[in-house]
Amino acid sequence: MIQAGIVGGTGYTGVELLRILALHPEIEIKTVTSRADAGKRVDESYPNLRGCVDALFTEPSVETLAGCDVVFFATPNGTSMRMADSLLARGVRIIDLAADFRLQDPAEWEQWYGEPHACPQLLAEAVYGLPEVNRERIRTARLIGCPGCYPTSVQLGLLPLVENGAVRLDNLVADVKSGVSGAGRKAELALLMSETGESFKAYNVKGHRHLPEIRQGLALAAGQPVGLTFVPHLIPMIRGIHATLYATLQGDCPDLQALYEARYRDEPFVDVLPPGSHPDTRNVRGSNRCQIAIHRPLDEDVVVILSVIDNLVKGAAGQAVQNMNLMFGLEETAGLKAIGLYP
Amino acid sequence: MIQAGIVGGTGYTGVELLRILALHPEIEIKTVTSRADAGKRVDESYPNLRGCVDALFTEPSVETLAGCDVVFFATPNGTSMRMADSLLARGVRIIDLAADFRLQDPAEWEQWYGEPHACPQLLAEAVYGLPEVNRERIRTARLIGCPGCYPTSVQLGLLPLVENGAVRLDNLVADVKSGVSGAGRKAELALLMSETGESFKAYNVKGHRHLPEIRQGLALAAGQPVGLTFVPHLIPMIRGIHATLYATLQGDCPDLQALYEARYRDEPFVDVLPPGSHPDTRNVRGSNRCQIAIHRPLDEDVVVILSVIDNLVKGAAGQAVQNMNLMFGLEETAGLKAIGLYP
Amino acid sequence: MIQAGIVGGTGYTGVELLRILALHPEIEIKTVTSRADAGKRVDESYPNLRGCVDALFTEPSVETLAGCDVVFFATPNGTSMRMADSLLARGVRIIDLAADFRLQDPAEWEQWYGEPHACPQLLAEAVYGLPEVNRERIRTARLIGCPGCYPTSVQLGLLPLVENGAVRLDNLVADVKSGVSGAGRKAELALLMSETGESFKAYNVKGHRHLPEIRQGLALAAGQPVGLTFVPHLIPMIRGIHATLYATLQGDCPDLQALYEARYRDEPFVDVLPPGSHPDTRNVRGSNRCQIAIHRPLDEDVVVILSVIDNLVKGAAGQAVQNMNLMFGLEETAGLKAIGLYP
Amino acid sequence: MIQAGIVGGTGYTGVELLRILALHPEIEIKTVTSRADAGKRVDESYPNLRGCVDALFTEPSVETLAGCDVVFFATPNGTSMRMADSLLARGVRIIDLAADFRLQDPAEWEQWYGEPHACPQLLAEAVYGLPEVNRERIRTARLIGCPGCYPTSVQLGLLPLVENGAVRLDNLVADVKSGVSGAGRKAELALLMSETGESFKAYNVKGHRHLPEIRQGLALAAGQPVGLTFVPHLIPMIRGIHATLYATLQGDCPDLQALYEARYRDEPFVDVLPPGSHPDTRNVRGSNRCQIAIHRPLDEDVVVILSVIDNLVKGAAGQAVQNMNLMFGLEETAGLKAIGLYP
Repeated sequence: MIQAGIVGGTGYTGVELLRILALHPEIEIKTVTSRADAGKRVDESYPNLRGCVDALFTEPSVETLAGCDVVFFATPNGTSMRMADSLLARGVRIIDLAADFRLQDPAEWEQWYGEPHACPQLLAEAVYGLPEVNRERIRTARLIGCPGCYPTSVQLGLLPLVENGAVRLDNLVADVKSGVSGAGRKAELALLMSETGESFKAYNVKGHRHLPEIRQGLALAAGQPVGLTFVPHLIPMIRGIHATLYATLQGDCPDLQALYEARYRDEPFVDVLPPGSHPDTRNVRGSNRCQIAIHRPLDEDVVVILSVIDNLVKGAAGQAVQNMNLMFGLEETAGLKAIGLYP
Repeated sequence: MIQAGIVGGTGYTGVELLRILALHPEIEIKTVTSRADAGKRVDESYPNLRGCVDALFTEPSVETLAGCDVVFFATPNGTSMRMADSLLARGVRIIDLAADFRLQDPAEWEQWYGEPHACPQLLAEAVYGLPEVNRERIRTARLIGCPGCYPTSVQLGLLPLVENGAVRLDNLVADVKSGVSGAGRKAELALLMSETGESFKAYNVKGHRHLPEIRQGLALAAGQPVGLTFVPHLIPMIRGIHATLYATLQGDCPDLQALYEARYRDEPFVDVLPPGSHPDTRNVRGSNRCQIAIHRPLDEDVVVILSVIDNLVKGAAGQAVQNMNLMFGLEETAGLKAIGLYP
Repeated sequence: MIQAGIVGGTGYTGVELLRILALHPEIEIKTVTSRADAGKRVDESYPNLRGCVDALFTEPSVETLAGCDVVFFATPNGTSMRMADSLLARGVRIIDLAADFRLQDPAEWEQWYGEPHACPQLLAEAVYGLPEVNRERIRTARLIGCPGCYPTSVQLGLLPLVENGAVRLDNLVADVKSGVSGAGRKAELALLMSETGESFKAYNVKGHRHLPEIRQGLALAAGQPVGLTFVPHLIPMIRGIHATLYATLQGDCPDLQALYEARYRDEPFVDVLPPGSHPDTRNVRGSNRCQIAIHRPLDEDVVVILSVIDNLVKGAAGQAVQNMNLMFGLEETAGLKAIGLYP
Repeated sequence: MIQAGIVGGTGYTGVELLRILALHPEIEIKTVTSRADAGKRVDESYPNLRGCVDALFTEPSVETLAGCDVVFFATPNGTSMRMADSLLARGVRIIDLAADFRLQDPAEWEQWYGEPHACPQLLAEAVYGLPEVNRERIRTARLIGCPGCYPTSVQLGLLPLVENGAVRLDNLVADVKSGVSGAGRKAELALLMSETGESFKAYNVKGHRHLPEIRQGLALAAGQPVGLTFVPHLIPMIRGIHATLYATLQGDCPDLQALYEARYRDEPFVDVLPPGSHPDTRNVRGSNRCQIAIHRPLDEDVVVILSVIDNLVKGAAGQAVQNMNLMFGLEETAGLKAIGLYP
């Protein structure tokens, strides 16, 4: 059994990792850390895990974590970059669910995250953990930076167009909506049910930290910079992301449905829906799947792509486990077979 | 007191009209019709109106309605165009909340609504009931076609840009999200709470009936055709529309905040928020107000406008009453002073 | 115009008071205090009030408040009892929405609220602000302790039975459910949408502070102590309380429907529904009304009463204004005519 | 592999059965019937099942179903009692998720379901499928009547008290709240999101069909009739039942926590929470577990039991699979290990 550690087990991505790993056939959860809750039973905080996770939260330390084969960081941004070097030196592989290893350029990291990167020397080695792009590199990686939730939905939605050159690259629009669990488990007024329930709003329109990550990924796919406007919104629900993506066709328009189906034919977790579909976020709730539909309204020159994921699964913990499966030579879908919880 | 009739009082826009008119200081509700519920007390169907509306549903007939000063049609599309002529001939003024008198071109109506228009001869006289555009014509109109809910939020959000020539007119994007009450009070599987709750989806991406209405309004404002992609979505909540609007600047960029503030300075129901704001739909819930914020992400050349309304008030019944106030020389805000129900 | 002050204007009951008072024909909002937000515009925190409340939050002080005719305390428990004496001495009338003046026995207050009462000498003078019980005493009161939200729904539901001796008094059950706004505007993990949405739970089953208040009110009505079990629950929605009340009939069973209709015939805000009804909380959302239905399942000896209110209106701010109207000789319904916001 | 058939695969319990069985290691889904959707792909109706269920809906017929080892009826009441005899005669075992085989007395069935029972001769053989009561009988049964969702939560909550004689049996109260998926997938106005969202109500207070079932189960446990008042309510959420149960202690009060822990020590799906707990329905969402907490408010003589389940899993499809596992000698938890989906 592979020994896994989780740093920061008290947030929503942490508990989701526990939910997935507890039923994973090849994994043993060795350590779950939480500074705030050290000494407390994990299932006291999360009664859904009673009988499934028999562990106490512990203080995070390199010594304890060094006994793991793999350590997941489900921590705030800026944590893993301070422990990564020591753990790698002990032979531990790292899967970071935070932002520390997503951007390749330390200057860009500093600009968006407000402090210098603590271990820029690792950025070149870190692999961006989107299996649909980097599967082979992931298999041999020691250090994975898992994509953000928004970037996962947007990149999976736009990659076939961008790789193919079918659309203009200077005026992409990503209007993306997320359930409130994406904002994390933080005691903030703005996240109260009385504040977010029965209401809808955009936020961070001036610039959201996931924007440079999306642009980086699309630019790599296109081989050139891309212009993209990204507006995130908060949906009055808990789980799910819906990306509505707009691109302007250029040149001869390929068969878009066929293009997407070909691109994702062998992907276990990307599901191109039949023509005319409108994916519901509920159909991927609790599952690691991304469902995508392609539209060309009125046969005019704007393509509209709809892409949905569960922000905590394919957008975070599930994708992290998918990366782990690849890194350890396991079946890619191991522990990730759950079906979307409808209704 | 002005005598008002409501045709089709059993849908959500009908009951919202009743809620507003019941407290309107100058109005007496004379007749409320419903074929399905004729003979039943209105407040038996809508217990929120107990003690406030003392009326029975009646069969709709020109004879009964002819005694009213004004008749509101809160009916399915295709109803008012079959009764309008007779009522106008009896001196009754008409405010239609359905789509029958929104489009000026009967061919376009037929294309989008699937049947020939029943009284094309009235289309030239009918006034599109958006007071922020047509206030003076509304004052003297006999026949008003109230805007749809989506078109209200989109036009109020884009008009200053389009009128001013500040943006390109060929690639506008309107990504709009609506609470489920916008779909009406119909016994359909897709509208069940188990189907729409805790989920988010786009619909009618191929083409929604509000698209030609939006294009017509913006083209009139611009003096030329506009290219606009419109994608409607369903939010898992009851009331509220949030339009996220994308436009590409061209020429010298004006002070956008000042532009909007000037355009709506005297409008009682359009509220331009301070720079950097993100309007919540909850803040206009139950109110006739539209709140708007203007953004220019990263100071690049795409403008993002956020525009929120309550789809049943400014998007339907409230706007209808605002039109009525204008038509009868009442204070424009009479009966419409309710403040958004937060939280 | 009556000059009103609000102490603690940043919670949900405070902003609801503002919403009601802003449209009240006889009231001018003179002062709104908030230690945390002093100097900030009220409508910056609450954009639904833009254009309706033109005030800044100020530091609370007896000097400023002394210029008011009436001061509302929408504060945490334990605040008003420290300022009441000074304000009364300056001739200001006080309406407390917190718990400081609800219980008559200072020992009981200390037991449930964890500190000695700061001005027990005022408890005898303070009037419990439930107009359906104390209307005449309210008219002349200087100091009102407004009922809690749960106690309002439970007492209005049980009073006719208890006053009439129709039921046993030793085994009453009040199973009551509240929307999350009842928990207030506090940055606590347990109130996040991700924690309370799509879930239902009981809380404080061991004993909730509203229990002694309910027992006190029913004992006064019965002329003897009552035994009542009270279990509060959290509903995944924002506004509304639904009390389900169980009592065992004793003696000859009166016509229960007639009993309730007679008891509340002249009450402007208590609405006894027709036999067989099941009140929805939505029908009183935003209104000051309590709707009640009476059932006797299978004609056995247990009576089931259903009673709904909006916790922020009849359960807090609306009832406070109803008290104010009585204290100042205004029409009892002034400012309180809003109709429930359905759907 | 065991061949399973599902009759009535288009309702919420049907699709939940499919979700569970699709991942069950010992089951092959052989037939899924639906009169309305015959010929249509199952995953066209339920896109969450894409890639997991490769079947078409077929017309229900004894011939097709006769090839199955077990047939689940996820049908409206009154369907299985018309096909059971023929299927049993062909050697097929039957698990009915509807009400046809829950009540032992055909006269009672007729009284509550409005028509004579179609095969009363099978009632004596049918086993009530609550494993916590009838595990041994279930192992050898040919015909199972699965408990209703409300009766599951109420009986699991009250059984230890009733079996033990710790409480009076004449005045039990079950105040139970259910998510809207319990009402099924039916195109009815009352189930629209605009009707049930953000609102709470009781229904069928006069008498709900689950009442005789609950009374029957508790009477069998007690060895005498019980008096119980049952009031169902609708929660504005999709999945989950919360039962709040009230009983009056009599005689010496046992250690209630110990009583429950002993009663359910070996039960894989009943989880007695630590003292002082308040179970959330979210913690069992998507899981087959029942979580229970025991309270004695103020140490008075009323016991309050809180019991939560997922109405579609332990309250329907999961419990049906648990029965199947027992009937076929499989591990009782096979296919039922999913952990509650929090948040």
